[in-house]
Amino acid sequence: MERSSLGLKIPEGMIDLLPAELAQLEELEGKAISVCKNWSYQKVATPGLEYRACVEPDADKDDHLYKFFDKNGHILALRPEFTTPIARMVATRQKGGQFPLRFCYSGDVYRNDSARYREFRQVGVELIGSDNDIADAEVIALAIEIMKTLEIKNFQLNLGHNGIFSGLAEEMKFETKVREELEDGIARKDMVKLEKIISSNDLPESAKELLLSLPYLTGKEEVLDKLQNWTHIKPIRKAVESLRTIYLYLKEFGVQDYVSLDLGILRGFSYYTGAIFEGYLPGIGVPLIEGGRYDGLYADFGMNHGATGFAVNLGFILEKAADFELDMADVLVYGQSPGAVIKRCRELRKSGKKVEMALGFLEDTDARNMASSRGIALLEKIESNK
Amino acid sequence: MERSSLGLKIPEGMIDLLPAELAQLEELEGKAISVCKNWSYQKVATPGLEYRACVEPDADKDDHLYKFFDKNGHILALRPEFTTPIARMVATRQKGGQFPLRFCYSGDVYRNDSARYREFRQVGVELIGSDNDIADAEVIALAIEIMKTLEIKNFQLNLGHNGIFSGLAEEMKFETKVREELEDGIARKDMVKLEKIISSNDLPESAKELLLSLPYLTGKEEVLDKLQNWTHIKPIRKAVESLRTIYLYLKEFGVQDYVSLDLGILRGFSYYTGAIFEGYLPGIGVPLIEGGRYDGLYADFGMNHGATGFAVNLGFILEKAADFELDMADVLVYGQSPGAVIKRCRELRKSGKKVEMALGFLEDTDARNMASSRGIALLEKIESNK
Repeated sequence: MERSSLGLKIPEGMIDLLPAELAQLEELEGKAISVCKNWSYQKVATPGLEYRACVEPDADKDDHLYKFFDKNGHILALRPEFTTPIARMVATRQKGGQFPLRFCYSGDVYRNDSARYREFRQVGVELIGSDNDIADAEVIALAIEIMKTLEIKNFQLNLGHNGIFSGLAEEMKFETKVREELEDGIARKDMVKLEKIISSNDLPESAKELLLSLPYLTGKEEVLDKLQNWTHIKPIRKAVESLRTIYLYLKEFGVQDYVSLDLGILRGFSYYTGAIFEGYLPGIGVPLIEGGRYDGLYADFGMNHGATGFAVNLGFILEKAADFELDMADVLVYGQSPGAVIKRCRELRKSGKKVEMALGFLEDTDARNMASSRGIALLEKIESNK
Repeated sequence: MERSSLGLKIPEGMIDLLPAELAQLEELEGKAISVCKNWSYQKVATPGLEYRACVEPDADKDDHLYKFFDKNGHILALRPEFTTPIARMVATRQKGGQFPLRFCYSGDVYRNDSARYREFRQVGVELIGSDNDIADAEVIALAIEIMKTLEIKNFQLNLGHNGIFSGLAEEMKFETKVREELEDGIARKDMVKLEKIISSNDLPESAKELLLSLPYLTGKEEVLDKLQNWTHIKPIRKAVESLRTIYLYLKEFGVQDYVSLDLGILRGFSYYTGAIFEGYLPGIGVPLIEGGRYDGLYADFGMNHGATGFAVNLGFILEKAADFELDMADVLVYGQSPGAVIKRCRELRKSGKKVEMALGFLEDTDARNMASSRGIALLEKIESNK
């Protein structure tokens, strides 16, 4: 049946990957997964579809899910990320596993927002069953090792802690609305907005000072000292101590040059509880790496495990990467007798060659043109006396 | 937020793949794709979501799509197969490409029916831009080469032709309803149903004889002679001649032992027009390989190209496969000083070893237990004087 004009189109936010594009993406993906495996992470896969009640339990929440009803009236959603589905998988199939579990994954995630890419490839890891700071350091060092292996230059990893703002918010008993607005202002480093919220809500002087400082607390270890001298709020001091230990371990891993502390980071997914981090490339506004500790998520699935992890958004790397050389066939075989051509192709393939077989008879010029336009170096004509 | 009982579940028809399961699937996938590349097929990817108007243009048709509205009120669907999306991709991005195009793919497809697996991994190829019988032979021989490379024993490929039944239906001017019922009866080889339709519709004697014979026309070349002697209907004789040529080429490819002619095959997707084939494993009722010629599809996308291809349903192979050995870490490193442990892990990884790092201090017995339960052969304790 002939297609309507809609039927000829690709949906908004989706992309096709032609051979050179896909080969490049898969090379990045393969290298990243290979690093994860060398660090003893085992690859798992979860399905493309989950119940919304799994990936976003709060029915009132504005989400960016592609979602729809199944035949029983339950809401299904395309996976927006892998961390929650992997928690569901562990809760159903790995409850008796020996923790810590180290899992990695690669696959496409779906977000129904107005971004240019609403389907994109992620590679990531989850380290489940440890609340030791060394676990945070391991995943951060692993994220950096992946970037280095992918030969991504000039990336920077910003490290913060969710306990800093949440510690302040709890101490000061911010109302939900104020808290959300402050989060937004800090995350965007929007000082005008921040000052406006602070002054219109009559916050105490100490909170005001801290809130206005957070976006500027970026750099190396000295920002930890600064924050520690400023406040006596316990959860904040605990967060600072944890960051100090993690940073120390990162030095042992030899990756401290890639890491910048940024105490004003706040991460989008609500499950983060501890150290959080984001990786950036110059000139790309969205994070290339998103990760952090999420100690509450496993409790939501009826288990008690600290966990940390990250995802790398591979598609964004692809955009910055140069042209890619495809691995073409070694030889194009043609001739007048199909039987003889088939036989020669079999022989060549048996000997390990990549072979393209001409379908039907080609004139010599056509064969030469075909080979050159496809980047096939060798041309073999089979004479017809079979 | 704590999960409801629904939020703890995996949706019906979906599966998680734990490390050993996924490793096995990816090994099969990698080998299959590698054979395709050796035959000069280039890998492409299409998105998980398409407009329904692309994958199923007939709005009245009962489909098995996972589908839903986008923000503009258009119906989106999860891809049920790759052949149609690749036609859309070629029409939008490869119109000026040099034909024939040879593409391969691997990815998950989604079918919202009552089957056990409603998401499953397919590897397949499309050979676009040739109506030569040698193109059909190439893809069939390639499908068999993949099965051999995957060491799938005892599979059988049944080869038929869509032109046989459709030639008869047009010659006899069957009404749509009768035609559909006959198709169903033939496809299921349901002789009781077939006889009932034939007698209640008063079909001519010649059509009756042919319809009741089709399900039994299975075997080697002699079934082609039988059919040719029986009928003078032109499209049927043309289909028989085409199958004869394809079978001859399959002998040249040396794969005829795997191929059985079955002139009663009818394929589910409506786009098939020529030679069609199905691969089966003993004991599995659903086809492992589904393929055939679809010369009309590209016209539906405004292009004029003959095309043929197939898909292999990898998940079904997995079910029959034996246990799989995972590639674990080479060594587990533990000790009292995190700094010293990290350093040793770095050294070992640099030397090419796969290393698991203990998080926090382990007693010797615990370290031994952990290594043995994970199948890690070596254990290395780092003494604490860093």
